[in-house]
Amino acid sequence: MDLNESFKHYSIWGKNMANHSKAKRGIPPKSDFNSWYPAIVEIADLVDKRYPIKGMDVWKPYGLSAMNLIDQLARGEMLRTGHHEYRFPLLVPEGLLDKENRLVSRLKAAREAGVDPSELRLDEEESGFKKEVYWVTHGGENKLEIPMFLRPTSETPMYTMFSLWVRSHADLPLKTFQIVNTFRYETKQTRSFIRVREIHFFEAHTVHADQHGADMQIQEDAEMVQRIMHDLCLPSLVSKRPVWDTFPGAWYTKAADVVMPNGRTLQVATYHHYRDQWAGAFDLSYEDPNGETQMCHQTTFGMSERLLGAVVGMHGDDKGLVMPPSIAPFQVVVMPVASHSDGNVIPAVQALAADLNSSGLRATVDSRDVRPGVKHYDWEIKGVPIRVELGPRDLKSSKCVATLRTGGKVEIDLDEAPEKIRVLLLEISDELRNRANSLVSDLVQEFPIENLDSKDNPDSIIDDGIVYEIAFDGNDSDAEFLERKTGLTLLGECDDPFVEPRKCLVTNNPTTKKQYIARMY
Amino acid sequence: MDLNESFKHYSIWGKNMANHSKAKRGIPPKSDFNSWYPAIVEIADLVDKRYPIKGMDVWKPYGLSAMNLIDQLARGEMLRTGHHEYRFPLLVPEGLLDKENRLVSRLKAAREAGVDPSELRLDEEESGFKKEVYWVTHGGENKLEIPMFLRPTSETPMYTMFSLWVRSHADLPLKTFQIVNTFRYETKQTRSFIRVREIHFFEAHTVHADQHGADMQIQEDAEMVQRIMHDLCLPSLVSKRPVWDTFPGAWYTKAADVVMPNGRTLQVATYHHYRDQWAGAFDLSYEDPNGETQMCHQTTFGMSERLLGAVVGMHGDDKGLVMPPSIAPFQVVVMPVASHSDGNVIPAVQALAADLNSSGLRATVDSRDVRPGVKHYDWEIKGVPIRVELGPRDLKSSKCVATLRTGGKVEIDLDEAPEKIRVLLLEISDELRNRANSLVSDLVQEFPIENLDSKDNPDSIIDDGIVYEIAFDGNDSDAEFLERKTGLTLLGECDDPFVEPRKCLVTNNPTTKKQYIARMY
Repeated sequence: MDLNESFKHYSIWGKNMANHSKAKRGIPPKSDFNSWYPAIVEIADLVDKRYPIKGMDVWKPYGLSAMNLIDQLARGEMLRTGHHEYRFPLLVPEGLLDKENRLVSRLKAAREAGVDPSELRLDEEESGFKKEVYWVTHGGENKLEIPMFLRPTSETPMYTMFSLWVRSHADLPLKTFQIVNTFRYETKQTRSFIRVREIHFFEAHTVHADQHGADMQIQEDAEMVQRIMHDLCLPSLVSKRPVWDTFPGAWYTKAADVVMPNGRTLQVATYHHYRDQWAGAFDLSYEDPNGETQMCHQTTFGMSERLLGAVVGMHGDDKGLVMPPSIAPFQVVVMPVASHSDGNVIPAVQALAADLNSSGLRATVDSRDVRPGVKHYDWEIKGVPIRVELGPRDLKSSKCVATLRTGGKVEIDLDEAPEKIRVLLLEISDELRNRANSLVSDLVQEFPIENLDSKDNPDSIIDDGIVYEIAFDGNDSDAEFLERKTGLTLLGECDDPFVEPRKCLVTNNPTTKKQYIARMY
Repeated sequence: MDLNESFKHYSIWGKNMANHSKAKRGIPPKSDFNSWYPAIVEIADLVDKRYPIKGMDVWKPYGLSAMNLIDQLARGEMLRTGHHEYRFPLLVPEGLLDKENRLVSRLKAAREAGVDPSELRLDEEESGFKKEVYWVTHGGENKLEIPMFLRPTSETPMYTMFSLWVRSHADLPLKTFQIVNTFRYETKQTRSFIRVREIHFFEAHTVHADQHGADMQIQEDAEMVQRIMHDLCLPSLVSKRPVWDTFPGAWYTKAADVVMPNGRTLQVATYHHYRDQWAGAFDLSYEDPNGETQMCHQTTFGMSERLLGAVVGMHGDDKGLVMPPSIAPFQVVVMPVASHSDGNVIPAVQALAADLNSSGLRATVDSRDVRPGVKHYDWEIKGVPIRVELGPRDLKSSKCVATLRTGGKVEIDLDEAPEKIRVLLLEISDELRNRANSLVSDLVQEFPIENLDSKDNPDSIIDDGIVYEIAFDGNDSDAEFLERKTGLTLLGECDDPFVEPRKCLVTNNPTTKKQYIARMY
């Protein structure tokens, strides 16, 4: 049974929804985004936050379906590009973390000393990671000899095994991914999908013979991110993170950020070029065709349930969620009208849904015995792209009316419903992209003054609900000055520079480097 | 992209297999099952056991694909029967375990006292569960105020939420399931899939208005287990576990056991009728149509990666795995022959695989530049049901030769390959069922003597590689005597009794109760 097939069986959904039409309490207006977001996540029944550990939500069926569909987008990209799916253990023995910490200290020391990291020995200890993980110390009533931690990400467990798997150049490239639960001991305020302690996580890890192979992988990752963001109808800002915000052990980190409607940026995807830095820590080498031992080069690529958070935040409106067709658990809901007065209505509704499903769409029937208005209201909250009504008059005319979640109604010939609805779904996706692009272009603005020093107190001109595009080519202390003075965070440098040099916002030197500063989630 | 679609992209599999054809070390003969099983699990590249925590294996792509397909069988049954998929947090606060422990003590005390459990108060403590779970005691460097444990199964997290969700009779039945990782602090020897510490687990939990609803659910569970076992070509023994082997808090437990080739039984599925016993501990009640408060009745149904262990153990042979077509990651491997001498071969091979895939089969191409014998050998180890060779001569005759993993070769017209291969896969499934039934009927035997007391030392007549069918209607101490004297374990009572009464093996009383005793995994 494939995934599409499985959705047919959701026709009993109507029953369970009855529980939630209780949710007819008002949704806060989206203009009050910080109230709207947590409310809609629960009202639309994506997760339940009442589990007795903060930041560990219960995934309800509707939220889980949407997340599974996002996973399928990622899985599809992975398999198409020659990655294989693995699943590594959740628990990691403490000793492996030590390897990782020594790597981090070494690189940190190297940066501070301006030394090539490869010159350094792995002899320092650093406890940074230990602060962010959950520790398993006991099995039953026994204290474990070696404590274990819950993976925050899987470099350590994976690279331990990679060093057993990679022997020769013929074993490369090794392209792996997994979709798993990861954990972070989060001390900041938690938010569903955005900042949680049990994280639904996607991670790809690759091993290459040389830097060129890893470079190409980073390029492939960038393209995959763009395709996934396109499918989710989400514009994103891609930038190379500043050195101090680079993933531990990485040569550099690139990230895609979504600008949420409140102007805060949400990092939804990152890819890291490790060069041979992690390989050194995990003794990951191979024999080249000449019989020489070479260090491997590595990359990783990560995404998470934050993608769903971005979808919720970007596309939703005052009436509820708006699901992009690519990941809508139901793309179409078919609702019978006046079925009590005409025995042909229910069979026709079921035939239409079956027709849509067999053409590869995800359709369901809402045959609850409630007024049509209630059904429209409920499915509007859940953001179903198209709602179709079918009653005795429609059967006579062989037409039906489709209501689009993005607005408007369209009359459809029943004969050509699957093709027509497929086109409407494409149009809805385009409409969502247009709206999102328009929102983002409003929220991303040029910085209002040319030089930061020219204003003693720039608070009056800075809106922390705006992402500012700036020219900046300063050093670390310039960046620190920039962040302190604006109260915003430097996201990093874009791939597309300014065409003409501009004055750096801090140093006044001419530069084409385009960077963003914003309030980050 | 649906699941079948995703398999098309495995055509790069050939590359990664190159790593593993090193596995040309001898497979132990299957007659030496206890050596054969762990060897084949690694040689066929299902998991890697070298991860530095015992009982936590790394799932390799081939093993994970097979497991995902088993999950899809379970998910299909669930959705078809109106269950919804959820995902609950992994971590459970200690306080919830106390509820569970009080429940267990209460029921234990009730049984010992011969009292109706509902008469008892929840005031005792019991520490049984604490011994079997992993404990998270620290977040970073902070000791947690309330320790948390990794779920061994999800009664406690789920029922905590169910009591928030269920208010009225209209909310019932609530039928849920999840597929997740669970953990058990296992002190016995670990074995891949069979006894592990991180367990790939399926669990369904349902809530009903009354006992009748729960009874019907148990019946539905029994039917689902039978369908899944049929799909996996596995015969199983179903029995009602003796009271002392009943799941904590359950009224009764039924289990399906697979008889492995060494005569040991492997419990692969269990379903539990809880009546309102757990509901009492978690305050799970609802308002009936008359406005009266009623306690809910509950059931659970569990399966795990043991199903894959049973598939491996039952169907494999001296040459490697034999994958049942329902869960074979590749049902067909197409191999080009003499493609260097005829440029039409590779396109024809690819067209054939595409044809098979588009008709819903899982096919791949092995285009490695190695001798055909090597390819046959590799795919034989991996248990692919059908291997097809296609070369210049085949193209001329428009035929190809299919080699079946269960033995024999069949010539197929290329025109009708999808239909023909579909039929062959059905025949292979039937053959696997026949072989498995035949094995099990050899391994399940009547007990060699009528009464256990008649033989002072029955060791000489008992073969611990045999599952014995016995007549038994004794009490707990009779069962203890039975187990001590035979060195075997009482699985429990079958649903189908003997037609004619027989003498109980211990008490000599006439009974139609049919039970099994065996060495259990």
